[in-house]
Amino acid sequence: MGGDGGGGRLLIIGGAEDRACGTGILERFVDLSGGGGARIVVITTATVAPERAFAEYERVFRRLGVRRVRELPIRGRSDADGTAAAGLLGEATGAFLCGGDQSRLRTLVGSRLNARLRDRLAAGLAIGGTSAGATALGATMILGGDGADVAAGAVRTGPGLGLMPKALIDMHFGERGRLPRLLSAVTLDPERLGIGIDENTAICATPDAFEVLGAGAVSVVDAQRATVVHPDSDGDPVTLFDVRLHLLPAGCVFDLAARCPAVGPAHARY
Amino acid sequence: MGGDGGGGRLLIIGGAEDRACGTGILERFVDLSGGGGARIVVITTATVAPERAFAEYERVFRRLGVRRVRELPIRGRSDADGTAAAGLLGEATGAFLCGGDQSRLRTLVGSRLNARLRDRLAAGLAIGGTSAGATALGATMILGGDGADVAAGAVRTGPGLGLMPKALIDMHFGERGRLPRLLSAVTLDPERLGIGIDENTAICATPDAFEVLGAGAVSVVDAQRATVVHPDSDGDPVTLFDVRLHLLPAGCVFDLAARCPAVGPAHARY
Repeated sequence: MGGDGGGGRLLIIGGAEDRACGTGILERFVDLSGGGGARIVVITTATVAPERAFAEYERVFRRLGVRRVRELPIRGRSDADGTAAAGLLGEATGAFLCGGDQSRLRTLVGSRLNARLRDRLAAGLAIGGTSAGATALGATMILGGDGADVAAGAVRTGPGLGLMPKALIDMHFGERGRLPRLLSAVTLDPERLGIGIDENTAICATPDAFEVLGAGAVSVVDAQRATVVHPDSDGDPVTLFDVRLHLLPAGCVFDLAARCPAVGPAHARY
Repeated sequence: MGGDGGGGRLLIIGGAEDRACGTGILERFVDLSGGGGARIVVITTATVAPERAFAEYERVFRRLGVRRVRELPIRGRSDADGTAAAGLLGEATGAFLCGGDQSRLRTLVGSRLNARLRDRLAAGLAIGGTSAGATALGATMILGGDGADVAAGAVRTGPGLGLMPKALIDMHFGERGRLPRLLSAVTLDPERLGIGIDENTAICATPDAFEVLGAGAVSVVDAQRATVVHPDSDGDPVTLFDVRLHLLPAGCVFDLAARCPAVGPAHARY
């Protein structure tokens, strides 16, 4: 994954990541942020209990050797457009978006902080997001919908933070049987790559590629060359031919430009 | 779907078909069996309550104008290998396999009745199956497994009746979120085409093609050109690249030899 310029990494987690030491995902975030010398800010906007969420991640990051952990408190649009948050972010080497309800993260979309996150990512900032904080990183975020059908009416989407511009990210993926909803979302915008991330599983992404880590798998839905026929009613099933589906456990890599998966070095033993 | 020789049709239903008149699926079975002049036998082996299941289908088929409806009572292997069942089947124009537990249908697999069903299908018999009676029609039948993971250990399969030789059929498909289990089954035998049928939805198949009818959709999983890497442990997620996935609502057709879907005449208005 290295050797591709000075940009920072995105670490996008499917929720319910193991917070004990030694399980890999949050350690990777600390590594990407600079290890013990990292300065991490935690964005708690998605949750209704920000103090508790911050305390939990502060405890974990401190246990992983990071001394400088701050909350980046964004309670509404004025905070997201204000100079205080931008200043705090300017000093950080890593920014982490907690889980909760992604609808609450809409207050960040298109804000000054959103632009700053994009600029700082390009300049080397590590950005992590879990659960709601994961889907918000895509160009479009999934806001709701958990039905069994693949239909336009089976999913609600909205603009995301656009930090992974070609992607539409879903989370708690296998655990909540969300392939129908990701397919539904992708049929509404087939140019976007659908990325479904299981719990305690993550992708570590540059603009060019991502690598899978963690316990579960990442499902990739590629409808770029698919035939999509939407019926008259949004509740009726979509006709969909030739979607490409990939299932990528830890160690797999995915080339975003070529839309091509590969077995990575961690699979060398097979 | 017509014009391809004298063979009979398979009508494979994803379970929970509407049994009121005028909803299409069971009417199609009656049509395929010869309409009012049909002689239908009902195979109740899958259920622990055969009398009740037979009475229900007898009522429906009679209401659809069929006067000659008989049960084909197979309670064990000696019935399946006996001459009585073969004789009764010999007079039928349609045979219908009820739902229940497909494990109970293993008593038919490889029996004299199984061979007779295959021969009579080729000669023009219509064969219908719903739920357990649907998955049993494939080359391999799915016996169990309803987890969220795609893994070899996530599904149990066994030999089926082989009436649709290249297929692996699953049912109650969207309603029970069974795409992971169908993918799991297909990774164990990528030459088989995985066909997942929603409730109150069916495929009408010849050896060359099938057509979709009913309220839901049919999911087709084609891993023939996929890359499959099974991990050391059957419980760990499978690596799977380049599976083709199709979602086919009513009116779509699928060419089994070319493994190619098409929008059928019923979609002409789009």
